[in-house]
Amino acid sequence: MSIFGREIAEQPAVAARLLDDRGPVVEAARAIQRARPVGFLIAARGSSDHAAIYARYLFEIRNRIPVALAAPSAFGLYRRPPKVGSWTVIGISQSGASADVCEVLEEAGRQGALTIAITNRPESRLGRAARLVLDLRAGRERSVPASKTYTASLLLLALLSAHLDPDPELDDALPRVPEALARALEVNGRRGNAVEALKAHRLAVLGRGYHLATAAEVALKITETSYSVAEARSTADFLHGPVAAIEPGFPVLLLEASGPTLRHLQNLRRRLQVAGATVVRITDRPRGDRLTLTVRSELPESLTPLPFAVAGQLLALELAAAHGLDPDRPRRLRKVTITR
Amino acid sequence: MSIFGREIAEQPAVAARLLDDRGPVVEAARAIQRARPVGFLIAARGSSDHAAIYARYLFEIRNRIPVALAAPSAFGLYRRPPKVGSWTVIGISQSGASADVCEVLEEAGRQGALTIAITNRPESRLGRAARLVLDLRAGRERSVPASKTYTASLLLLALLSAHLDPDPELDDALPRVPEALARALEVNGRRGNAVEALKAHRLAVLGRGYHLATAAEVALKITETSYSVAEARSTADFLHGPVAAIEPGFPVLLLEASGPTLRHLQNLRRRLQVAGATVVRITDRPRGDRLTLTVRSELPESLTPLPFAVAGQLLALELAAAHGLDPDRPRRLRKVTITR
Repeated sequence: MSIFGREIAEQPAVAARLLDDRGPVVEAARAIQRARPVGFLIAARGSSDHAAIYARYLFEIRNRIPVALAAPSAFGLYRRPPKVGSWTVIGISQSGASADVCEVLEEAGRQGALTIAITNRPESRLGRAARLVLDLRAGRERSVPASKTYTASLLLLALLSAHLDPDPELDDALPRVPEALARALEVNGRRGNAVEALKAHRLAVLGRGYHLATAAEVALKITETSYSVAEARSTADFLHGPVAAIEPGFPVLLLEASGPTLRHLQNLRRRLQVAGATVVRITDRPRGDRLTLTVRSELPESLTPLPFAVAGQLLALELAAAHGLDPDRPRRLRKVTITR
Repeated sequence: MSIFGREIAEQPAVAARLLDDRGPVVEAARAIQRARPVGFLIAARGSSDHAAIYARYLFEIRNRIPVALAAPSAFGLYRRPPKVGSWTVIGISQSGASADVCEVLEEAGRQGALTIAITNRPESRLGRAARLVLDLRAGRERSVPASKTYTASLLLLALLSAHLDPDPELDDALPRVPEALARALEVNGRRGNAVEALKAHRLAVLGRGYHLATAAEVALKITETSYSVAEARSTADFLHGPVAAIEPGFPVLLLEASGPTLRHLQNLRRRLQVAGATVVRITDRPRGDRLTLTVRSELPESLTPLPFAVAGQLLALELAAAHGLDPDRPRRLRKVTITR
């Protein structure tokens, strides 16, 4: 089995470990409450940046805190950082080595902002730059495409959101995340059809709200492992232009999650099908056609990006196999990418 | 000639008109200075959202004001808006009819935020929702792909930035924008080669810093008019994964603008060329190969997204012709898209 496949399978255990010791999250939540920030600024690249997209919806919708995603070049290349002294600034990086993400936290710290690192390497430059560190505790991630560090980042963010503004539904659901991830690993029945339908040089991956993050992450997994151009979009933005690219047989992966966005996702699906697109969906709803992958998450919407990501990782894994490619070693990529 | 082509050609005149009466911009800058916002929240969709990306770099780098791009669904679909009473909230919409953008401004107004609409229709719902309105004064835009309203939005944002924090270089350069746009219209010499190279079902459009906005906008123009899947990326994010999709002959349009990002763009170009990609560039530097489109902008970096956008629009226009498609009427799109 590939390393990517093994690391995908570790996710229930990684989640259980994070749920087991919430001390650092509780401390971070208290520090944020004391700081009373005007907003959260989040700096990240690659998969971690997709965790940041999730954080944007999570903290805005659940905690009513405005979230800005940092433009790292303003801090690094341009050396004209915005004034963020009254913000809480969060850096997310598996390796903690991404120079531009570190520069954002270092500058924010100089300005007096509360800084928090979410990383799998607490001893890294990012970990050292931050006032507080949330350790992903995912164990070493060796395959180039991230998997367990992505869902671990989402879970830490969800725990932080829950401790900032507790609510019974989310509190009850969090301990069920490991079993939901385990069930997502078993999604297989119809995966063969989905893989066949998505085995293309170009495709679109669409989601809305919380699942904009899932769309970006699954598209990246597919690009990394199959070299397809997989374009991730909000379903709303898709209707503002890119829908023009749809032609008969064009493959679309739609993240049709339950919640306030569902009606819009269903309407879009029907429009895409009328235009002749081949629509594969990942859904947590019971019924579907032969191109539907059902994730029985039994989680509130805000946590469904975790099992949906697992289903998307498995799709990417099988797409790589269908293309005859090694998912662990995408061409031209290394595990740690240092950009500035 | 297509309507899209005619509207592209109107851009120097539209810019001159905006520069001629700065009254509303001066008033908006004063209102912002009085409000002393903790940040700017910008709500937009489609091309206007690309203007918002430009605004993010502009206001962060020039004015040191943190900028968040709104997640409209938090306001509309989820009905859980973040707390933005101490922010300045800007909505950008050509038609002023985009329901989700209007909802952001309406809610922000209820919370007491200073709200500003940038629109070509001051009498629209967006115009009525905002405390201050900046009229794009671009004349009716009839072709589905936006052109003159995009560069007019950029220019209004640049004027606002300049009036918030005047500096002699930018102040001197602003009146030269119309002639820079006129020169960009004349870029043609080598466009035939570039069109041939980019006539593909999939391509990447890459920029960094201010030109992340240009990348997103030019990719959308190409998708709308040629139905290609054109993926826009920051060059930094591209190296974190999507670079794996590059194979010999893969077309890349690189926005190689002068400024602090140039060295990184040049390094990336060499890596892409080594991997066998066909790299077309738009640049404001004097020298280039047969796949280089040179824009003699003579503007500071923060204003180069205007003439670069014009060069990209012309490319999209000619790509449509090369594909035998009508740029004015992309399939499945209407001029006004109302999403929620």
